Amino acid sequence: MSPIPGLNTVGLLGGGVIGGGWAARFLLNGVDVILYDPDPEAPRKVEAVIANARRAYAKLTMAPLPVEGTLRFVATPEEAVIGVDFVQESAPERLDLKQSILQRASAVADPSVVFGSSTSGILPTQIQIGMHHPERLVVGHPFNPVYLLPLVEICGGDATSTAAKERAAEVYTSIGMRPLMLTKEIDGFIADRLLEAVWREALWLINDGIATAQQIDDAIRFGAGLRWSFMGTFLVYRIAGGEAGMQHFLAQFGPTLQWPWTKLMDVPDLNQELIDTIVAQSDDQANGSTIRELEELRDDCLVSVMQGLRTVGYGAGEVLADFERALFDRAPAPAVAADSAQPLKVHEIRIPTEWVDYNGHTNDSRYAQMSGDAADAFLRYLGVDADYLRGGHSYYTVESHITYAAQSHAGDVVYVTSQVISYDEKRLHLFNRMHRADDHTLISTGEHMYLHVDTVAGKAMAAPPEMIERIAAVANAQTHLERPTQAGRFVGAPR
Amino acid sequence: MSPIPGLNTVGLLGGGVIGGGWAARFLLNGVDVILYDPDPEAPRKVEAVIANARRAYAKLTMAPLPVEGTLRFVATPEEAVIGVDFVQESAPERLDLKQSILQRASAVADPSVVFGSSTSGILPTQIQIGMHHPERLVVGHPFNPVYLLPLVEICGGDATSTAAKERAAEVYTSIGMRPLMLTKEIDGFIADRLLEAVWREALWLINDGIATAQQIDDAIRFGAGLRWSFMGTFLVYRIAGGEAGMQHFLAQFGPTLQWPWTKLMDVPDLNQELIDTIVAQSDDQANGSTIRELEELRDDCLVSVMQGLRTVGYGAGEVLADFERALFDRAPAPAVAADSAQPLKVHEIRIPTEWVDYNGHTNDSRYAQMSGDAADAFLRYLGVDADYLRGGHSYYTVESHITYAAQSHAGDVVYVTSQVISYDEKRLHLFNRMHRADDHTLISTGEHMYLHVDTVAGKAMAAPPEMIERIAAVANAQTHLERPTQAGRFVGAPR
Repeated sequence: MSPIPGLNTVGLLGGGVIGGGWAARFLLNGVDVILYDPDPEAPRKVEAVIANARRAYAKLTMAPLPVEGTLRFVATPEEAVIGVDFVQESAPERLDLKQSILQRASAVADPSVVFGSSTSGILPTQIQIGMHHPERLVVGHPFNPVYLLPLVEICGGDATSTAAKERAAEVYTSIGMRPLMLTKEIDGFIADRLLEAVWREALWLINDGIATAQQIDDAIRFGAGLRWSFMGTFLVYRIAGGEAGMQHFLAQFGPTLQWPWTKLMDVPDLNQELIDTIVAQSDDQANGSTIRELEELRDDCLVSVMQGLRTVGYGAGEVLADFERALFDRAPAPAVAADSAQPLKVHEIRIPTEWVDYNGHTNDSRYAQMSGDAADAFLRYLGVDADYLRGGHSYYTVESHITYAAQSHAGDVVYVTSQVISYDEKRLHLFNRMHRADDHTLISTGEHMYLHVDTVAGKAMAAPPEMIERIAAVANAQTHLERPTQAGRFVGAPR
Repeated sequence: MSPIPGLNTVGLLGGGVIGGGWAARFLLNGVDVILYDPDPEAPRKVEAVIANARRAYAKLTMAPLPVEGTLRFVATPEEAVIGVDFVQESAPERLDLKQSILQRASAVADPSVVFGSSTSGILPTQIQIGMHHPERLVVGHPFNPVYLLPLVEICGGDATSTAAKERAAEVYTSIGMRPLMLTKEIDGFIADRLLEAVWREALWLINDGIATAQQIDDAIRFGAGLRWSFMGTFLVYRIAGGEAGMQHFLAQFGPTLQWPWTKLMDVPDLNQELIDTIVAQSDDQANGSTIRELEELRDDCLVSVMQGLRTVGYGAGEVLADFERALFDRAPAPAVAADSAQPLKVHEIRIPTEWVDYNGHTNDSRYAQMSGDAADAFLRYLGVDADYLRGGHSYYTVESHITYAAQSHAGDVVYVTSQVISYDEKRLHLFNRMHRADDHTLISTGEHMYLHVDTVAGKAMAAPPEMIERIAAVANAQTHLERPTQAGRFVGAPR
């Protein structure tokens, strides 16, 4: 029993990459699937797609996924649709083939059951010819991988009922998709017309020897592609128009329609009527947001996308990771020489607004963060830099103790000093003090034990002699310092 | 003194959205900027862009950003380039204007200084005419917002030297960008030709009344746009071709070039020679990766992008968040009455991408955060809610101790349990355990001492009897639990 009301079982006609993707999406949403595909290889291919989808969903969400639906392969289109709540057809892109399968299936399916077709190019008005109850046929055009990408274009033919389109949208939404309801029937619907334009231009670029496949892909994925993952062309251009808005943008960039920037030269007449239409639609889309608000939204999305990709280490995520390594390499060693006999001042930060919690001051965990960042700065000073990490060595934290003596608030500048309490070839025992910069009040202390590790083997190992020497230099200079009273405390120890 | 060797000061000619974006990127990388723009509004506009960039960089990275460079506005192009290490021109897109500014600036700049032009459409061969030492002029075409998007297209003109292109690439890379070196000079370079194709098709869709700006944008950002944020058209299509590869894909989709899927109908002849070229370039690009490996890479990137966007709650991130809420709604109710004689499970979180540090796993301070968040959840359970806080009472943390037993990574689900170690009318001593949800591995512990406070007076005070009763109820139920071995430890205590 599927947890989605009214959607216990679906019938799938066709089990290629797209049909397999539908199977995976329905199954992982707890819906049972009956699948017809005459290809004897279909079960193997579909299982491979489902395996990919299981892997992706395990990473995608911590929400409670339902118990997976069951998958059954059948030998005829008729068997795939009897008793089901929805049908999705993903047969090869041949009109005669689709019509034949849909005619057979619709003859036995309950008349109330809606049929979606995955076609990317054939018009629903043609597909529904010959069907029993053709009013229930809609195009529901998904994108690969179907189990992850939200978009599904819904397009009805001449005979399609509004109710069928609404039912399809309800089904797709219930399995985590984002239906885009088309108002007109058109070859290639909307998305594939845009993709096809890019594809044709890309073919020209290779044909003319201007660029390689890799260069073209890089021109997308390091630039406009990052924006397109959350904002389309129109909203992006509205922002580019700045405070003057879409009207200004069109006035400025309209003339480039006559420039030879693409081999695809057919362009509409950008007359005042078309400009007015676009401006009005752009205003609707912005829905009252100012350009500044849209810029911040754009930047927040870009940052989150690049940070996401950094976890995979690919594309713009790789660029960001390389950039961060360079920042670490370039970070100055803390100023020490003159008074290295004092605790080293290794870190300084202005408390950001988002660090303040419901008590109105900096959240306790942020002191652990500041102390950890200071320790990182101290480790860089000792030589734990990008090369050192690349060489498979680092220090890992094994224990931390934080005390809180006073408060800090958003906007306060806090600096952190480090003192070496003890060390040996594997261990480094650090004590950090956090002070408000305005009056040097001690607000928190952080005590940490670090272990030198072989990061490949994941085991403790002795640090190289040069590292020990550098630690010794600091520790020796600090020997006259008193052991901090907060060091060696346990939680609840008498004060 | 900039931390980037050989790049202490840059001269910027033009300070609009693009010039301001360059200013922000250089400044935040610690490079001093001298900016010429005749517009009296330029300082205000540039400062607005820099403010956006500061905001974005504060979120972008935990790496140590250098001290911001200084920004100085000057009244002539000449003043902007004397003594600088690199020049970037971002004047309005008029050839005569660019030539005039560059002629003046190049007459006084050191002959070794390379000039980049931000033009998106004018050929470098034209721009460099009239310059002193024209061999040092390259196009360095960025994308908005310049301070975040990595792509910069580098294109030389007839007179441009290889050394100038290499120097420009070095400069752009040093400030976190991803140069794309063009091999041929062409109108619109590569990226804008692709963008222009999309733009023209989009204009047709609105002109013909097929779709609105919002529908077109949705067709991009919920579908292909998500893929384009990390893979371009060619690699995406290679994967779509499946095991049969690019040859198969081209054979299957080549004929659609004749179909009316776009209004932009000029297409190259997809003959065997062009097919062979594309297949060979696609093989180069895949660099030995199997389709299965590419599918997993694609899915990992998609998941990370959607999770990134979920933190902003926009686009596909909003779809994912809605989907997760539906999953929670549909999930069967948990078995009632969690056994209060066990440590209470009070908090659960999926490790966000931005919590991972240079060691490739969750940063140590995030365990303090998770333990603190869990303690907050426990305090809410005890009745420390919004009303309680409004009444001038709360618990403040006075001491924390964190141990680290294993690692966690982005995407891992971690849950936290709380155990009351001791309490009296003012103090509450809590012990939290953090477990990975997949196999219940204990990865970290957090021990905290809380003090009940009068938040107005800023002093410790006894908690009200009802609070003590609620704490006692939990503590009594947990009396049979052993005292955790990690409790009462000090940093460096023998294990």
